[in-house]
Amino acid sequence: MTDLYGIIGDPVAQVRSPAVFNARFKAAGLDAVMVPLHIVGDNLDGAIAGLRAIENLAGLVITVPHKPAAARLLRTCSDRVRMAGAANVLRPVPGGWDGDLFDGEGFAIGLEANGYQLAGQRCALVGVGGAGAAIAVALATRGIAHLAVCDIDEGKALGLVARLQGLGQCPVSVGRPDSTTDLAINATPLGMNSQDPLPFDVAPLRPQAMVAEAIMKPPVTRLLIEAANHGCRIQEGRHMLDHQVDAIWNFFSLSHDAKEGQHR
Amino acid sequence: MTDLYGIIGDPVAQVRSPAVFNARFKAAGLDAVMVPLHIVGDNLDGAIAGLRAIENLAGLVITVPHKPAAARLLRTCSDRVRMAGAANVLRPVPGGWDGDLFDGEGFAIGLEANGYQLAGQRCALVGVGGAGAAIAVALATRGIAHLAVCDIDEGKALGLVARLQGLGQCPVSVGRPDSTTDLAINATPLGMNSQDPLPFDVAPLRPQAMVAEAIMKPPVTRLLIEAANHGCRIQEGRHMLDHQVDAIWNFFSLSHDAKEGQHR
Repeated sequence: MTDLYGIIGDPVAQVRSPAVFNARFKAAGLDAVMVPLHIVGDNLDGAIAGLRAIENLAGLVITVPHKPAAARLLRTCSDRVRMAGAANVLRPVPGGWDGDLFDGEGFAIGLEANGYQLAGQRCALVGVGGAGAAIAVALATRGIAHLAVCDIDEGKALGLVARLQGLGQCPVSVGRPDSTTDLAINATPLGMNSQDPLPFDVAPLRPQAMVAEAIMKPPVTRLLIEAANHGCRIQEGRHMLDHQVDAIWNFFSLSHDAKEGQHR
Repeated sequence: MTDLYGIIGDPVAQVRSPAVFNARFKAAGLDAVMVPLHIVGDNLDGAIAGLRAIENLAGLVITVPHKPAAARLLRTCSDRVRMAGAANVLRPVPGGWDGDLFDGEGFAIGLEANGYQLAGQRCALVGVGGAGAAIAVALATRGIAHLAVCDIDEGKALGLVARLQGLGQCPVSVGRPDSTTDLAINATPLGMNSQDPLPFDVAPLRPQAMVAEAIMKPPVTRLLIEAANHGCRIQEGRHMLDHQVDAIWNFFSLSHDAKEGQHR
């Protein structure tokens, strides 16, 4: 019987996960398929409830704008989900769904894999939606020196600061990228469209700073171009997805299945 | 964006529709996929409601045991669905689902395609669940001389007889295959398992009679073997599915899409 996986978003036509996971299912010899599920706004609750009734639905990936709403529909979840108030992977458990959030891990591991040392850095994060909150939690647990966060919704930024202060891992405050920043991160949607204003100004940054994106399309945003011209190192958004595929694969218990698959 | 199609059943691992339709999607150059959706008993209503919230879910095929329940969840439906009290295909319409039932058409067209002339024949149908009721309606509208129906649930058989008499297309009564029968049909599940008793006795049949199956696995049931040994012509169940694929394809408006696909 085919194991079915879905990726839920609005829009969802642009997502890369089905191509990435279907290639991996094939390589592992698994009878499994990931399909895009386009679900808009208020329909999420009913859809997630209905999908739970499909016995061979083995997991869901959640993308923009549904990550915060998905976190409220879980029976059990990780601390990452609780801290960030967002979930990007769901797996069925008796009576409902278990959820986790790997955007932040993917982002941090992507930086580390490219030789960037997070410990001791002063970080500034713009945008604390689902992805931004996830990145904040992942950074806070990696020994950074300071984290500044801001959002167009000031209350949302203040709420995240309070939760991260409760975690007690690193100093956290509300603030924007400035001349003291080592790592400046865009986790807003600004840059997906070519006419978008910049999420933050690169002029105040020192050229030794790193500027990182959470946006995957376009691969290189106007922010990254301006940062590179300013002399900064840059990190593209695709690394956030690339480096969470292993974590999602394990979350879906596919490491185990893949081994079984070889003996089928 | 991938158009998603599902086939819902319990069990559903055995269904042939995904292989048939996915090959056809590929041949037509369509970005579409059909996946099996395993849904058990009472979960159908919630699942069907939830699936309606997936914008790119373009259609559902319904199989055993959900065809009668699916008919009750429709916003609009064909006369075939109303007569048989069962639906085997659903497509999204504003506010819900539109449904139709092609099992009977597939069965009748399959017989005709194999050179069997239905007009004027005396037919006897055993089993009036979703598939059986669909076959009864299709036969009644093809100029047959008489239709006898029976079921282990006598009330169900009497109800179908009353609805078909209301249709006024041919004489209908409750009865079993006998020496007057030209075409005897099994639409019960008896024969799916090798230990099942025969759905009816072939001994009373004249050797000129035709015996037809609605069961697809095994391809040749014990009933068909005994009927062939008795000298009767036989028709395998697979023809019922094979000859409704065109009708389902049109119902899903894919003839139109396939033409568009060539110009994309």
